[in-house]
Amino acid sequence: MTVLITGIGELTTNVDGPLSGAALVLDGDRVVWVGPATRAPDADERVDVGGRAVLPGWVDSHTHLVFAGDRTAEFNARMAGKPYTAGGIAVTVGATRAASDSVLAAGLRRHVAEAVAQGTTCLETKTGYGLTVADELRSARLAAGVVDEVTFLGAHLVPAGVSRSDYVALVRGEMLDAVAPHVRWADVFCETGAFDEAASREVLTAAAARGLGLRVHGNQLGPGPGVRLAVSLGAASVDHCTYLTSSDVDALASSSTVATLLPACDLSTRQPLPDARALLDAGATVALASNCNPGSSYTSSMAYCVATAVLQMRMSVEEAVRAATWGGARALRRSDVGVLRVGARADVHVLDAPSVTHLAYRPGVPLTHAVWRAGERVG
Amino acid sequence: MTVLITGIGELTTNVDGPLSGAALVLDGDRVVWVGPATRAPDADERVDVGGRAVLPGWVDSHTHLVFAGDRTAEFNARMAGKPYTAGGIAVTVGATRAASDSVLAAGLRRHVAEAVAQGTTCLETKTGYGLTVADELRSARLAAGVVDEVTFLGAHLVPAGVSRSDYVALVRGEMLDAVAPHVRWADVFCETGAFDEAASREVLTAAAARGLGLRVHGNQLGPGPGVRLAVSLGAASVDHCTYLTSSDVDALASSSTVATLLPACDLSTRQPLPDARALLDAGATVALASNCNPGSSYTSSMAYCVATAVLQMRMSVEEAVRAATWGGARALRRSDVGVLRVGARADVHVLDAPSVTHLAYRPGVPLTHAVWRAGERVG
Repeated sequence: MTVLITGIGELTTNVDGPLSGAALVLDGDRVVWVGPATRAPDADERVDVGGRAVLPGWVDSHTHLVFAGDRTAEFNARMAGKPYTAGGIAVTVGATRAASDSVLAAGLRRHVAEAVAQGTTCLETKTGYGLTVADELRSARLAAGVVDEVTFLGAHLVPAGVSRSDYVALVRGEMLDAVAPHVRWADVFCETGAFDEAASREVLTAAAARGLGLRVHGNQLGPGPGVRLAVSLGAASVDHCTYLTSSDVDALASSSTVATLLPACDLSTRQPLPDARALLDAGATVALASNCNPGSSYTSSMAYCVATAVLQMRMSVEEAVRAATWGGARALRRSDVGVLRVGARADVHVLDAPSVTHLAYRPGVPLTHAVWRAGERVG
Repeated sequence: MTVLITGIGELTTNVDGPLSGAALVLDGDRVVWVGPATRAPDADERVDVGGRAVLPGWVDSHTHLVFAGDRTAEFNARMAGKPYTAGGIAVTVGATRAASDSVLAAGLRRHVAEAVAQGTTCLETKTGYGLTVADELRSARLAAGVVDEVTFLGAHLVPAGVSRSDYVALVRGEMLDAVAPHVRWADVFCETGAFDEAASREVLTAAAARGLGLRVHGNQLGPGPGVRLAVSLGAASVDHCTYLTSSDVDALASSSTVATLLPACDLSTRQPLPDARALLDAGATVALASNCNPGSSYTSSMAYCVATAVLQMRMSVEEAVRAATWGGARALRRSDVGVLRVGARADVHVLDAPSVTHLAYRPGVPLTHAVWRAGERVG
């Protein structure tokens, strides 16, 4: 079953600059043709998008969607001036442990569907609200059936009633053994109050030895070792990057570690926005992601992240859109998503606008017109 | 035809604090009953909203929706560092004059429908892209059939080829005479580069003498006389308020002039956000509006304005929601909208969320589940 998408006002491929007069052909779950509409081959179905802009679906490379419970009250307290300390994670851990599999799975599917309806076609999600061997394993298994990439985040917080050293030993030992077969990635929350550099290194090194790719939560609440550690271990991504020194920026620029920025989280925790300009100007690869989770950033809107990046972080529209598609793909070390070229996954996002500029020019307006995810029309 | 809305998780009325276990009854275009669901009367139709939050529809008291043409390039130039100077208004004036009635009307209806689909049930819009007697009259007539409140903004910019003094005389004379029968309000862009205090006063005084209510664009691009002038003339609203002195704040607090804040415009023009806290703490009435227009703020999303107000302007969720509903109503001197009580217009917004907090907790996520506008279910 082939689909010809034509009538495209502006095509963002992430291979060339924006194209006009272009068309796309999908066959099953793949892109099989990109070129001038006048030379497009025949297809089983023809969809004219009426001059709208077309781009790769969003690649949201950082979410925490296996959770139960509610943290509205914590959000309200923060808006009333209470500082964010990650301590609220324990509230979600309690609710997640107490929830049935079916409740957790339904919440996960509901949040994924909400994201897909807004043009997100590739999602990573993390464990990290279980923090026992059984609960982390359950989270990983549930996620594996629903999202594209699953990350083990046993090292999210030291749970109540366990000593720090015992917990680190558990995470890098028995818990990692149990969860590793179900995930591609391991991540550590390397921050004051969570895991220090030495503990983070222990967990990440053990995960690498099990063949997992590495990710790091770093430099969120203050300057710290997260970026240095991520780069030194060859992690695919270091996420947050709210507080960077110039040597952190240099380290990222001269590595293949992606700097994943989470501006909705910074706004929702009243942190400063990260210095995207310094990273881009130095030559680092930047991704934008939602960090969708019930505590620090409860949004699934990649368009909101893009608009914020342009309006408030001085990224150009082109840089921000690229960071939210191809940047996310690089942060997941994938080359089949976040791009529209022959052989790529048929992840297509049609905007109700003539150009991607409208994502920042029209902030908050729901602009998703149509979505194909792996060739399936989902909205 | 009566409709009982029940299953409400949280009801915001703007009369009392948030209510739980409440229900609403609509009859035609009016609210006829508000009270505990257990005591709700029978109705022809019963709608269970499944625990969702219900609030009055947004009152967007500041938009410029009678326009043609595109200013994407100007937006991109601004994001690349070019300062905003209001000079781009002339581009829209040229395109609007050149457009047919049917093109203008279709654009207006499309933008209104987009706003209503996001929960806006009462809209003001302005003339101001015609700037000849015939073109301003045309804009006013087109708007009068489509939006709730129409404002004459002949004093938006001095058009090319006309002297400033001749133009002010035209606006306060022949143009006002032609347009006044079709509008309720007059507005002036009182800013360096547009109209100074004396010219603004001349136009507003003439409009008041014709029985029009007054509004002022003031203190947008720098400190200025706009707020003082608005308060001294008893204007219903002064809009923007980005640069306020403490005496401006005091003047607003001791007047019935509403301070209408337009945060999406400030972000889109890279201005600072207004000091909502100073206004609220002093006791001023604050409204939030979109300023939807193709130049400085091309969004129709009141939810984006509310999220920005909470996350970045330190308004509480309750203050921001109130400002975007009842505040807008006060800025339009209406008491039948922006409120849910017996006799109010049946303007009802149902969120896909259990509480209004989610408007800020989940920025960018489209949360409109259902809308009634004057009793008609529109989404």
